[in-house]
Amino acid sequence: MSRQVEPGQTGVIPFGPSGHGLKARKLGLIAGSAEPIAVMPEDCAICRAEGLTARTSILVEAGDRQIVARLMRSTNDLVAEGDIGLSDEAWTRLGLSGGEPVNVRHPQPVPSLSALRKRVYGNRLAQADFANIMFDLVAGTYSDVHLASFVTACSAFPLDLDEMIALTQAMIGAGKRLTWHQPVIVDKHSVGGLPGNRTTPIIVSIVAALGLVIPKTSSRAITSPAGTADTMETLAPVDLDIEQIRDVVARENGCLVWGGAVDLSPADDIIIGVERVLDLDSAGQLVASVLSKKIAAGATHLVIDMPVGPTAKVRTLQAADELSFWLEAVAASFGVKIRILQGPGVQPIGRGIGPSLEARDVLAVLQQRNPPADLADRACHLAGALLELAEFAPLGGGAMLARNALESGRAWDKFQAICEAQGGLREPPVSAHRQVVLAPNAGMLGSIDNRCLAQLAKLAGAPASKAAGVELHCRLGDAVETGATLCTVHAESRGELDYAMQFYAGAGAIFGIEEP
Amino acid sequence: MSRQVEPGQTGVIPFGPSGHGLKARKLGLIAGSAEPIAVMPEDCAICRAEGLTARTSILVEAGDRQIVARLMRSTNDLVAEGDIGLSDEAWTRLGLSGGEPVNVRHPQPVPSLSALRKRVYGNRLAQADFANIMFDLVAGTYSDVHLASFVTACSAFPLDLDEMIALTQAMIGAGKRLTWHQPVIVDKHSVGGLPGNRTTPIIVSIVAALGLVIPKTSSRAITSPAGTADTMETLAPVDLDIEQIRDVVARENGCLVWGGAVDLSPADDIIIGVERVLDLDSAGQLVASVLSKKIAAGATHLVIDMPVGPTAKVRTLQAADELSFWLEAVAASFGVKIRILQGPGVQPIGRGIGPSLEARDVLAVLQQRNPPADLADRACHLAGALLELAEFAPLGGGAMLARNALESGRAWDKFQAICEAQGGLREPPVSAHRQVVLAPNAGMLGSIDNRCLAQLAKLAGAPASKAAGVELHCRLGDAVETGATLCTVHAESRGELDYAMQFYAGAGAIFGIEEP
Repeated sequence: MSRQVEPGQTGVIPFGPSGHGLKARKLGLIAGSAEPIAVMPEDCAICRAEGLTARTSILVEAGDRQIVARLMRSTNDLVAEGDIGLSDEAWTRLGLSGGEPVNVRHPQPVPSLSALRKRVYGNRLAQADFANIMFDLVAGTYSDVHLASFVTACSAFPLDLDEMIALTQAMIGAGKRLTWHQPVIVDKHSVGGLPGNRTTPIIVSIVAALGLVIPKTSSRAITSPAGTADTMETLAPVDLDIEQIRDVVARENGCLVWGGAVDLSPADDIIIGVERVLDLDSAGQLVASVLSKKIAAGATHLVIDMPVGPTAKVRTLQAADELSFWLEAVAASFGVKIRILQGPGVQPIGRGIGPSLEARDVLAVLQQRNPPADLADRACHLAGALLELAEFAPLGGGAMLARNALESGRAWDKFQAICEAQGGLREPPVSAHRQVVLAPNAGMLGSIDNRCLAQLAKLAGAPASKAAGVELHCRLGDAVETGATLCTVHAESRGELDYAMQFYAGAGAIFGIEEP
Repeated sequence: MSRQVEPGQTGVIPFGPSGHGLKARKLGLIAGSAEPIAVMPEDCAICRAEGLTARTSILVEAGDRQIVARLMRSTNDLVAEGDIGLSDEAWTRLGLSGGEPVNVRHPQPVPSLSALRKRVYGNRLAQADFANIMFDLVAGTYSDVHLASFVTACSAFPLDLDEMIALTQAMIGAGKRLTWHQPVIVDKHSVGGLPGNRTTPIIVSIVAALGLVIPKTSSRAITSPAGTADTMETLAPVDLDIEQIRDVVARENGCLVWGGAVDLSPADDIIIGVERVLDLDSAGQLVASVLSKKIAAGATHLVIDMPVGPTAKVRTLQAADELSFWLEAVAASFGVKIRILQGPGVQPIGRGIGPSLEARDVLAVLQQRNPPADLADRACHLAGALLELAEFAPLGGGAMLARNALESGRAWDKFQAICEAQGGLREPPVSAHRQVVLAPNAGMLGSIDNRCLAQLAKLAGAPASKAAGVELHCRLGDAVETGATLCTVHAESRGELDYAMQFYAGAGAIFGIEEP
């Protein structure tokens, strides 16, 4: 009781004694959420000494790395006193290999929390605010609760143009950015929501064959039965690092790889995860999501495929026009030339839904062997727009040029060359279990519920089961007889096939057959 | 490939085969968040068969109980194939004792998600919407992300009067409700933010001694160094069930118990947890929080203590008037008579901050042995308002009646009787480690930072360490000499004391001493 302490001059909260030397232990647990997990014994001495007994999140330090983790407490021998159990995500982000000493302490207040609160109360944010929020979000200092609040606030008060530009810039700044020597780098994006529609490998093959540079990085499926990376993976390796990507592009003008290794706009993936849980998707977030990825990838010329239909992502022409306006305005502010092609989004494009089935469609188009005409047409249309935008074709002449490249076999040659450069062309796998869906009555096929069809493909196992999915045998407007085959469901296991068929039986009319 | 499936007529998604008979295993893990945890082996057959491989949350069923749990995946032998590991929260909510078969399947869509989305987009919600949201929230079908979105939406677009009434009603309806035979049931609430201020045990003793019925249920600390239940627990048992509470109230007119066993407005505790993380507290949520708890407890007459000051919860007189308006309007709609006493909130009330130290203040006032005058005055003022509101005293005569009960020893007699009825009066514990904080210079004590002072008490171990906290030796306006004792920090362990003192050294001026 003799020491005298005088108040200091700073407002900084010191963080207790360092060097607890807790032993890090890998729990062997994938938490699968934004927040990694740390487990310590209930009522452990260090938690008490650090005043952490009532905390739900803590700062964990190993060497010069630190993360904010959700603190859980073990009530048995899961974690021993003096140890700290970490989820696989925590282990990876701390760069641990085993045996390193780890310290725990109070998390610092989230630096951008005041900016987040400002936005919740309806105030507009400046560039620096968005930059701080995206930095914190990518650094892992945002919990799910913070993320959800940010997404909600940006839906409650939609982003204005300045904010969209600022958020796009902030998302680019919070990740890596690719630079290329060539002055014109083309790229393509589909707003999505339409099953199938796997035009990207075809477009890349066409425009790269004609001399455009298109270093295409694609995502894996988030909510859909397949992403372009999932489909391409059935045809060639896609998990390339940045040096390998540069090599492929230098040799072939284009590539078709997974973007995950390149860390472009990592905030986008985090935000999308929360939007999905809340079923919120605002125009501003979508614009920043699309453009941050493309600009970070180095694109200077961008074509956007925007299917419009009642069960597509963009449901009305009015929504399509609004979204197009924002995309064009934000792209212009970054000096990116953009062209948006709205198109019909009432039924899948191509026959296959699922990685392997879509890959077969791509091969059919490139090899010109019984190609789905709608897929070939859409790919030529989009490739033509890219050729025109990059001034490789006169206005109105792009699609013809693209079709020539396809029909002459140049695109197929280029596709094979790209796959070889990425590690070798391979054959997509074939499903082990199949079941056909028959028409319960005769009539004209009047409608297809794209969302339910995608769900059917997912329940059959896509995209994790590469060969799983749905193969369509009908198109809108077809006259069908009772008992005609509408589609075939493909699965890799009997259980997945049964589950998908149960869903189909209960889902109501995926196929709307209008009796004459 | 021979079975034919015809589309059904319903839109309901069936939930796969039941009866997996997974073996439930207790992980020995307290998750400590809104979402209980379920762990299954990575890539387990049942997850694949059920299409759960990409899910982050699943429905877990045991008998007729079900919960939504966050799904995590074990990559080692933490959970064996055919087992499911559950956090303590999941175990308890499923009512498991061990060995029961458990099923997993897709969670049903959160039923109130569309109402939540409506609110996010700025639409007002009706009574039924709030009822559905509160039901889902208490049932555990809301994840942290949903909770954060709800709280954010109610801050972005503040609740209007109809919504406050609807939310209050919904929160009452989502928990238990106490009923009493007596027509007049009084209660008291403090809006908080001011350390110390432990008037409740004194008020209950006074008004119960004078014949009012006051079945007082209190909370434990959430963010403060002590809740009334924490303080009372150092003096008597507080963990009573509803029958025991009825017995005590029947005998003594009042009780001083923890409300946790009674399950009043459980949604309140869940919402408060998220508001704290986001540092959001809207007037509407506060009104619904306070009134739902009190109305569920059966109160008909309510006095509210509202300290106002720059570091209290309510910071300005304007905010106090606004909050008072909403409280009065919503209380009126439920037929509850209410009186709100705004008061100075610039410094702690009483000398002690922390469970045991505050209990000593309470005893000093009740026993009339060197009582802190401010605490006695505030308690008599509030008790007087209750007596007037319940027409036990004429307007303006309540405080005098209360003081008489205190000074005559009747309140002390009643307090002892209540404690005996609850299980026996006991002596608050005394701290093992103490350190004094001395004035660095001479002058007049011009300000106290209540938030930093509360933080100091918490870092010293309060409320988990009952004897920990801060004992104040000065009041605003005091002339202090250099080296005068400003306060004593109490702790139960040396580590906690050191940690608190480090914070004090870095926290800047908790005590503002103005040089003459």
